[in-house]
Amino acid sequence: MKFLVLHGPNLNLLGKREPGIYGTQTLENINSSLVELSSVLGCELSFFQSNSEGELIDNIQAAARECDGILINPAAYTHTSIAISDALSAVGIPCVEVHLSNIHRRETFRHSSMVAPVAVGQICGFGKDSYLLGLRALFNHVKNI
Amino acid sequence: MKFLVLHGPNLNLLGKREPGIYGTQTLENINSSLVELSSVLGCELSFFQSNSEGELIDNIQAAARECDGILINPAAYTHTSIAISDALSAVGIPCVEVHLSNIHRRETFRHSSMVAPVAVGQICGFGKDSYLLGLRALFNHVKNI
Amino acid sequence: MKFLVLHGPNLNLLGKREPGIYGTQTLENINSSLVELSSVLGCELSFFQSNSEGELIDNIQAAARECDGILINPAAYTHTSIAISDALSAVGIPCVEVHLSNIHRRETFRHSSMVAPVAVGQICGFGKDSYLLGLRALFNHVKNI
Amino acid sequence: MKFLVLHGPNLNLLGKREPGIYGTQTLENINSSLVELSSVLGCELSFFQSNSEGELIDNIQAAARECDGILINPAAYTHTSIAISDALSAVGIPCVEVHLSNIHRRETFRHSSMVAPVAVGQICGFGKDSYLLGLRALFNHVKNI
Amino acid sequence: MKFLVLHGPNLNLLGKREPGIYGTQTLENINSSLVELSSVLGCELSFFQSNSEGELIDNIQAAARECDGILINPAAYTHTSIAISDALSAVGIPCVEVHLSNIHRRETFRHSSMVAPVAVGQICGFGKDSYLLGLRALFNHVKNI
Amino acid sequence: MKFLVLHGPNLNLLGKREPGIYGTQTLENINSSLVELSSVLGCELSFFQSNSEGELIDNIQAAARECDGILINPAAYTHTSIAISDALSAVGIPCVEVHLSNIHRRETFRHSSMVAPVAVGQICGFGKDSYLLGLRALFNHVKNI
Amino acid sequence: MKFLVLHGPNLNLLGKREPGIYGTQTLENINSSLVELSSVLGCELSFFQSNSEGELIDNIQAAARECDGILINPAAYTHTSIAISDALSAVGIPCVEVHLSNIHRRETFRHSSMVAPVAVGQICGFGKDSYLLGLRALFNHVKNI
Amino acid sequence: MKFLVLHGPNLNLLGKREPGIYGTQTLENINSSLVELSSVLGCELSFFQSNSEGELIDNIQAAARECDGILINPAAYTHTSIAISDALSAVGIPCVEVHLSNIHRRETFRHSSMVAPVAVGQICGFGKDSYLLGLRALFNHVKNI
Amino acid sequence: MKFLVLHGPNLNLLGKREPGIYGTQTLENINSSLVELSSVLGCELSFFQSNSEGELIDNIQAAARECDGILINPAAYTHTSIAISDALSAVGIPCVEVHLSNIHRRETFRHSSMVAPVAVGQICGFGKDSYLLGLRALFNHVKNI
Amino acid sequence: MKFLVLHGPNLNLLGKREPGIYGTQTLENINSSLVELSSVLGCELSFFQSNSEGELIDNIQAAARECDGILINPAAYTHTSIAISDALSAVGIPCVEVHLSNIHRRETFRHSSMVAPVAVGQICGFGKDSYLLGLRALFNHVKNI
Amino acid sequence: MKFLVLHGPNLNLLGKREPGIYGTQTLENINSSLVELSSVLGCELSFFQSNSEGELIDNIQAAARECDGILINPAAYTHTSIAISDALSAVGIPCVEVHLSNIHRRETFRHSSMVAPVAVGQICGFGKDSYLLGLRALFNHVKNI
Amino acid sequence: MKFLVLHGPNLNLLGKREPGIYGTQTLENINSSLVELSSVLGCELSFFQSNSEGELIDNIQAAARECDGILINPAAYTHTSIAISDALSAVGIPCVEVHLSNIHRRETFRHSSMVAPVAVGQICGFGKDSYLLGLRALFNHVKNI
Repeated sequence: MKFLVLHGPNLNLLGKREPGIYGTQTLENINSSLVELSSVLGCELSFFQSNSEGELIDNIQAAARECDGILINPAAYTHTSIAISDALSAVGIPCVEVHLSNIHRRETFRHSSMVAPVAVGQICGFGKDSYLLGLRALFNHVKNI
Repeated sequence: MKFLVLHGPNLNLLGKREPGIYGTQTLENINSSLVELSSVLGCELSFFQSNSEGELIDNIQAAARECDGILINPAAYTHTSIAISDALSAVGIPCVEVHLSNIHRRETFRHSSMVAPVAVGQICGFGKDSYLLGLRALFNHVKNI
Repeated sequence: MKFLVLHGPNLNLLGKREPGIYGTQTLENINSSLVELSSVLGCELSFFQSNSEGELIDNIQAAARECDGILINPAAYTHTSIAISDALSAVGIPCVEVHLSNIHRRETFRHSSMVAPVAVGQICGFGKDSYLLGLRALFNHVKNI
Repeated sequence: MKFLVLHGPNLNLLGKREPGIYGTQTLENINSSLVELSSVLGCELSFFQSNSEGELIDNIQAAARECDGILINPAAYTHTSIAISDALSAVGIPCVEVHLSNIHRRETFRHSSMVAPVAVGQICGFGKDSYLLGLRALFNHVKNI
Repeated sequence: MKFLVLHGPNLNLLGKREPGIYGTQTLENINSSLVELSSVLGCELSFFQSNSEGELIDNIQAAARECDGILINPAAYTHTSIAISDALSAVGIPCVEVHLSNIHRRETFRHSSMVAPVAVGQICGFGKDSYLLGLRALFNHVKNI
Repeated sequence: MKFLVLHGPNLNLLGKREPGIYGTQTLENINSSLVELSSVLGCELSFFQSNSEGELIDNIQAAARECDGILINPAAYTHTSIAISDALSAVGIPCVEVHLSNIHRRETFRHSSMVAPVAVGQICGFGKDSYLLGLRALFNHVKNI
Repeated sequence: MKFLVLHGPNLNLLGKREPGIYGTQTLENINSSLVELSSVLGCELSFFQSNSEGELIDNIQAAARECDGILINPAAYTHTSIAISDALSAVGIPCVEVHLSNIHRRETFRHSSMVAPVAVGQICGFGKDSYLLGLRALFNHVKNI
Repeated sequence: MKFLVLHGPNLNLLGKREPGIYGTQTLENINSSLVELSSVLGCELSFFQSNSEGELIDNIQAAARECDGILINPAAYTHTSIAISDALSAVGIPCVEVHLSNIHRRETFRHSSMVAPVAVGQICGFGKDSYLLGLRALFNHVKNI
Repeated sequence: MKFLVLHGPNLNLLGKREPGIYGTQTLENINSSLVELSSVLGCELSFFQSNSEGELIDNIQAAARECDGILINPAAYTHTSIAISDALSAVGIPCVEVHLSNIHRRETFRHSSMVAPVAVGQICGFGKDSYLLGLRALFNHVKNI
Repeated sequence: MKFLVLHGPNLNLLGKREPGIYGTQTLENINSSLVELSSVLGCELSFFQSNSEGELIDNIQAAARECDGILINPAAYTHTSIAISDALSAVGIPCVEVHLSNIHRRETFRHSSMVAPVAVGQICGFGKDSYLLGLRALFNHVKNI
Repeated sequence: MKFLVLHGPNLNLLGKREPGIYGTQTLENINSSLVELSSVLGCELSFFQSNSEGELIDNIQAAARECDGILINPAAYTHTSIAISDALSAVGIPCVEVHLSNIHRRETFRHSSMVAPVAVGQICGFGKDSYLLGLRALFNHVKNI
Repeated sequence: MKFLVLHGPNLNLLGKREPGIYGTQTLENINSSLVELSSVLGCELSFFQSNSEGELIDNIQAAARECDGILINPAAYTHTSIAISDALSAVGIPCVEVHLSNIHRRETFRHSSMVAPVAVGQICGFGKDSYLLGLRALFNHVKNI
């Protein structure tokens, strides 16, 4: 089993960026924790981060040929990108959406997601743990298809 | 560590009810899986289900004296109950909100949550797994406070 | 054939309450007229009134095991209760929604119904006659399933 | 006692038209069933169908001089025609609004009615039975004025 | 100078219809008063009333070949008819919109007009006097073009 | 019979101000034309213009002791002033609202009026003629009370 | 003179609950202060608190047989309960609505009240004093009926 | 293959009407161009124009018995007529919607269409060419069913 | 302790104005009752009424130098005046907002208040008593700062 | 004559992607059909597809120097991209917007277009034929400028 | 060159008022800094502050006779005053709108401006510097007309 | 002191693009004028333009390591880009937002800004001068931190 982990815009700044909202973990910390968990679960991971909506879509499309699922934190594009949502819907492999912060505690425009209706499910509010729980959820989902 | 697992209205019908939306698991199945996981994690669980908003609030208030956190599926009350939200906010112990179905794929009135802004985080869409992931999330959160 | 007749909040005050809106019939009058009609049609009725959303749901769930249909006047809960709507949808037996007054002539918040989309149909504006017509509608519907 | 039965636009296609929504009854079937019931109740009926808003209004105005009430299915004009609503309000004879389908289960723009606020009441969702129940409701209402 | 006076749906009922809102004048009274005023001002009038949106449009189009202006009370079609508005805009002769009642004191859906943006101006609230003032306004406007 | 003619903010600039919208008439021209008409009709006029909402209200209140009616062009305050509307409603003498331009052809925020619901009626779009027609309307209305 | 003091959901937690919003007074403190004031004014009080909407309605209905008025803090149900509003409207005895906090300073969904339109008046923002002022208001109102 | 070409309200004025918006083509020009193209494609056309919503519906219904498809420019009824939409949906033959002007460049109320959801597709903005392209689209669609 | 009592627009008409809404008390009656209560409580009062938003702001600013609090009935300005709200917020002395009528029973635009979010609290619906209760509330609030 | 054919995000997946919505044609099929038609019409085509909003804009800008028009299917960016709309408006060469599916039958957020107001016209719902009709429309439009 | 500097309601309190929002500068400081800059640029300034909407309009009208432009901070009237906007539009001399605070960071009702559409431009968020930059902008604009 | 000047999508077309809206200045003109001013003020500038949201974010992130502030014209992304707003908020260096045109005079969707709430302030409407004033504002702001 192989999964793509996709990080959206500005997530490369994690750990340096507004720790009051996103915590002190860097993207590297999150990725290593995911690798650790993946070896426990028995699956393989690849990673990609971009600030560009188009590159995220390119990678979702590419994933369809090589992966069994996508773990995505679409960050700011969560709330506006019909194109990412269309890409996920087109490739047809399972996707789980995660957020570090509890988006329902923040500005109203962050409460809704264009991605969630095409995802298996959504997990938000647990910091790095959102990613780890998301990987478990995706792994279990693919195992049971 | 001790947690209260709260099930909202109509969840006692699980397994008998619209399997296309909620799956074939009964509430008993979910509770036993949670008990299993709790013994792995090393924590204790108590359970309560009610169709009454008032009884759910009574139990949230009581939990504050005996529990370290609440795992709640507020079901239909998710979208309308300011009173449950106020209760959770008042007792001040951590709470994680879970949903069996992906509420973002259903009617618009199920996309928003009165409870999420006072919860640590929200998990939806993974069937029984939403509860299990929710317990992990709650356990980790309380451990790290 | 057996039906449950469910009366929502404040309907126990009928006859004493705002006759300009609801007429001078008491709940007892309505129930006896329904019993009369039921013996003409050849079916059996049971009755329940409550001011509590939770108790109404409990009774809807119980009805599923003993009744062929539900005749419900959800009163004030018509416009807000996702939980009653979920209960009716879950039990899967036919339900007819009735209202004494013409809800479309009253405040805007009374024009919409959370229950109607899961009911067979809706009848409003005919006072006690709304119930009697509702019973006929339910009886015919069940007979023709 | 004499009543006008008014059928709005496209109802002449009944039976040929989308049976999944409107059933397999033709307008002729409905009219004969109404005639049968009228002779049981002891009242007289006349019928009119038109696709034209103006002709429906002409007939509502004419009815005021010869009828004791109107049974109307305004079909698509239900949701937009202030003019039909004004006509019914102007002639001042009782009117009952019926719909074959449960309008609350369909597109949002079919949930509201311009006619209902000037009708005695509204009945929807019971196919041909909506008309028969409507005639009973109108008959009883006029008898008790 | 020649003007068409157009009366919209249900105005043929004037005098018989809800006098609390529209007064006790009949359409004939209004028309004779207009004729009287027209001979004082020195202009000619023709009259048309219809309950049909299509016939009103036909007459607006015909007026363009024979009249110097239109005095219109679009009644219920005021608030919904893009087609009447398009017709008035297409024929390009001046039009004055009048209403017997003060539409701003009535239901919210009567506060806005599809016709007013293509009319010279609007007069409402003065009963029969609305028509007489409207004729003066139209006469002066055409005289000064 | 005596009437107060009230001109709202910026109307003192008439004739100098945006002639494309308001025409080339000055306030003095309008007032003399009104005086001329008043002597034809047989009534007396007094005039007041102010840019201040408070002064307009002071004058409405004072008018109640000396006048039989108010002819008002509330200009920009038309769309926002609950206080002017309350004053007119409190003094209880008849009021007619006029506008030089057709407010329904301009920005959306100019389409609605806080004053119209407490006025006898509203006239707009006829330039200076709006005032003259308004005086006729007010005169007739007071004569017929 | 006898009054019922009704406390809505979560008010049993007062003093323990978010003192930044609700102050440090317990429900017992508030009730004793009310009793003190009642003996000054010369009236009798009974008290009831519940987290259940249905029980609050039951008590409003019961009060109608024994009390001259109701002092109610509907708490979270203020903003959503049509059923409590209907109950108060049905029993027809005077009711005064109070809130500890200034609801207009809090989330938007707390700015509106379903109860206020059926109450004599509303008092909010003065902590325990809201109750004491509310009792005075209710007492004076009933004395002057 | 045979198609009905339906022209909605005011389209009989084409060429005489607001050329800035609709161009200088008359309805006759458009119809002859369509006939020319139809002989190239190998299909037959009939034409109907009406200002009346009801007559348009009558013709849609009649077309079902004789035509393989409908090419419709519903003009002003595009944005409001549920009845035309219901007729098209009921007759069940393919329909293509065309507009001379680019409706997305005009008033907001012209941006949406009640007809488009029941049409095969929509073409707008190309003047007479909209009709010709629409005929090609309809012809190809029917050929490939 | 010294307080300013501020009366907004049209309140000088009290007693003469719409008694069905505002009662039969004059502003002088209200002021004397307040003076009476102030001598019981042991504080001093000054009074100001104006129809002008600007003068009310001038007086709020002046009060900051001489008073310990403001008792204000902003009347019609309640619902629109950001400037009065800014003034109260700027001077920083406590303010209590009162209304004679129950604003929640009146037009929707009277349900919200620009002033309430910067006031200590709001009291409405008790006629003259609203002012007396407001003075008590203000007095207690200032005493306990 | 030379045109640029621009394909927006995810259109490279055509044929592999949700055939229920977009049909079984690949982008290559569509491009060859366009080339065929272009040689019939007598014009030249170049093609570009990108998932990136920025690259689409770069190509629109470049087209202005070499092309006589643009045929664009902006796909998901249709509904959100002000930047693409600004680019098309800035380059000032004619543009025709096409969609494979009937966007008015899909989710509400797909009904509106940011691009249509700056395009000559819009064609949707005819699968590959939308592109071919679009090329004809663009060709005719440019020929007639 | 001569400019009028207009300060809206409550700006006379600057320096004493909420320094967290508006800084510690007084209005006198701002005015002297503007005078300093004006002598550098080579222009003359006059100043006016008022809490009254009407007086601000009076001064805008007077400025038209003596000034080449207006530098205005309309403060709270920014968001509601159609009358100030109309005055600026009527006098026709250039106007620049400035705000001390960043209005887009504050309450939603402060995000929009009635004045901006009739101003040359708007500057906000730079404290006293907003005025100085605004004077530069106005000076350059007038120099280049 | 060093600043990054960021130009958003389509600004590379300046001077060639719609001069009626954006003036005749090219981006090169604006940049040289900024360089001139920077040498007067004593600071250094770097420049970047892109049509890609992702590249703009990359450059904002890079700026954080080398610059003391950002002068940004986000053009079309102003109104939709949560991602650019998040980037600016994350890097934490001061940013000033400028626009050539007065965005409040254009389409409604251009009135609001996602960027402004995270900027120091906003300047719009002064053509090239908006940039020069923006640089002064940014320079002064950084000098005074």
